[in-house]
Amino acid sequence: MNLAHLAHHLGMSKTTVSRALNGYPEVNVRTRERVLKAAQEVGYQPNPMARSLALGRTNVFGIIYPLLPSDMGDPMFLDVVAGMSSALEAVNNSLIIAPVSPAAEQPAYQQMVRGRRVDGLVVGRTLVRDERIAFLSKAQFPFVAHGRTELKAPYAWFDYDNEAGIRIAMERLLGLGHQRLALISAPLELNFARQRKDSFVAALAAAGLAADPRYLIDNTLDRRSGYQAMQQLLACSPRPTAVIVDNHLSGVGAVRALLDAGIVIGQDISVIVWGSMADTLAGANVTTIDQPDPCKAGARMVDMLLALINGVPAGELQELWQPVLLEGATVGRVKASDA
Amino acid sequence: MNLAHLAHHLGMSKTTVSRALNGYPEVNVRTRERVLKAAQEVGYQPNPMARSLALGRTNVFGIIYPLLPSDMGDPMFLDVVAGMSSALEAVNNSLIIAPVSPAAEQPAYQQMVRGRRVDGLVVGRTLVRDERIAFLSKAQFPFVAHGRTELKAPYAWFDYDNEAGIRIAMERLLGLGHQRLALISAPLELNFARQRKDSFVAALAAAGLAADPRYLIDNTLDRRSGYQAMQQLLACSPRPTAVIVDNHLSGVGAVRALLDAGIVIGQDISVIVWGSMADTLAGANVTTIDQPDPCKAGARMVDMLLALINGVPAGELQELWQPVLLEGATVGRVKASDA
Repeated sequence: MNLAHLAHHLGMSKTTVSRALNGYPEVNVRTRERVLKAAQEVGYQPNPMARSLALGRTNVFGIIYPLLPSDMGDPMFLDVVAGMSSALEAVNNSLIIAPVSPAAEQPAYQQMVRGRRVDGLVVGRTLVRDERIAFLSKAQFPFVAHGRTELKAPYAWFDYDNEAGIRIAMERLLGLGHQRLALISAPLELNFARQRKDSFVAALAAAGLAADPRYLIDNTLDRRSGYQAMQQLLACSPRPTAVIVDNHLSGVGAVRALLDAGIVIGQDISVIVWGSMADTLAGANVTTIDQPDPCKAGARMVDMLLALINGVPAGELQELWQPVLLEGATVGRVKASDA
Repeated sequence: MNLAHLAHHLGMSKTTVSRALNGYPEVNVRTRERVLKAAQEVGYQPNPMARSLALGRTNVFGIIYPLLPSDMGDPMFLDVVAGMSSALEAVNNSLIIAPVSPAAEQPAYQQMVRGRRVDGLVVGRTLVRDERIAFLSKAQFPFVAHGRTELKAPYAWFDYDNEAGIRIAMERLLGLGHQRLALISAPLELNFARQRKDSFVAALAAAGLAADPRYLIDNTLDRRSGYQAMQQLLACSPRPTAVIVDNHLSGVGAVRALLDAGIVIGQDISVIVWGSMADTLAGANVTTIDQPDPCKAGARMVDMLLALINGVPAGELQELWQPVLLEGATVGRVKASDA
């Protein structure tokens, strides 16, 4: 069954059928639905090469990944990439990663869009105010934001519920009697860091506690800065009794600082880290706020990109997944002497 | 100074000057040298956009990276990528990584070449018999092999001296009295693993020792398989007194297996790992065969690619860098009871 047969079967022109299948806006909704239903019934498979030529598509999707000197390969990112890559392979499309220095990021977006080198982009590590997303949105270029941002116009995004993740962790710690709570944050221009910190402060307020500014440390997004942030907390008097680290890259350094200082984690100080800590710290079974299924998350973003270029409105492609608390051995009841 | 001025200055046609600068083979060597010399003297800078149009170039270079499930982001690979990426940015070109599943690797090469999506490719993790390199070489597509391979035709490659690295490590271990030496290898279809194993066996033979087949374990290229390989060596009777691991991914697992078994590394068993072990194992200061300057290595491969598309013959672009032994705390004199 080719396009001509399908058109004949429906009594429509090939042009109309092709446009309906490819989500052109000038085809009305009822026609589109009729065509898609018929295509499914007769098992019509479009020829990918012909489709690509007709649409001027590259069948390539991209991520622009800013390479930071300290950013030695984030295993969570790689899981997401693996999910995207296999989802794209399954439909004969492919993925490219463009690693650029932070300074070259904005030009890289412009180049990708102007050169139409890819059919769509995933934008990672979204900022509260994100020029990349503003640019892509204005250029009406298909993109999915991996993380939310401040933007008036509707846009497609995939995110985990930052507010809920911190709330769950705080409920756990408050329930164990902790009152001197600290937060180690990524730079607050990152949207996830901003949302997680707001949620932390809100949870403290709801428990009738004020945030001690010495216990709020930001600008950490690697092992070294996480290590230093925890050392800074250990130098406070009194020390916090529980610490949340909002990203696993700093989390590794923060836990290492506790081990090096001879702190019995879970007894002297409780720790919860956002993100997977598997295989990074021998012996330390860290309690985490886990983002389940990074691989499926990658595949879902690919589905959203494909839906987008097939004409689904961006505002209908917004998805919030729930993080879960994974119990480890680094959280315990507050000590009597600290209560 | 533009191309027209340079041509006028030389008394040649613009076409000849342009072809000479871009390394077209129909320009004879003396003309080319004269043009390059004059261009340098007058400080001629080609317009990259015009150059790109004239040559049908994309100004994009690529790496196709097979994503293995166990391959959670290799920090050494990322350093090389960072070096490539900044070297390309410096000349207004860019890098893309195409992450594919191992099954899709060969089609991905064909697509990149047929679609002329990139100007050149770096081929990583070369095999002894490498279809990708055979394909690119036959298609006369510009590429640099990151690692050598069996191929009759001259091709551009960048590699570290696998033979020398193992030889240095063996000299060190033999000098400390070790005679029961083991090697944990990556899969032997990988060229580096084959060369390192050959060098290991040759060094044993040169010392008048035979290779004990129980001490030669291959097919390890991740943490888990490295762990299991070391467990297998620990189960041998007698145990080896020194172990070389030919890749750092397995090295992390192998060292972990020793720590978990309560072995005093450097006393009970000596260990040397090929590659950077920084930040991967708390407390274990592992003696390594180090590949210096991965970032510069990436930049060098970019230079080679650019030279290649500027007409330098592939056979002249072959570079072997020397690894060095970085002393750690995991190598010691053989115990009197084992000597």
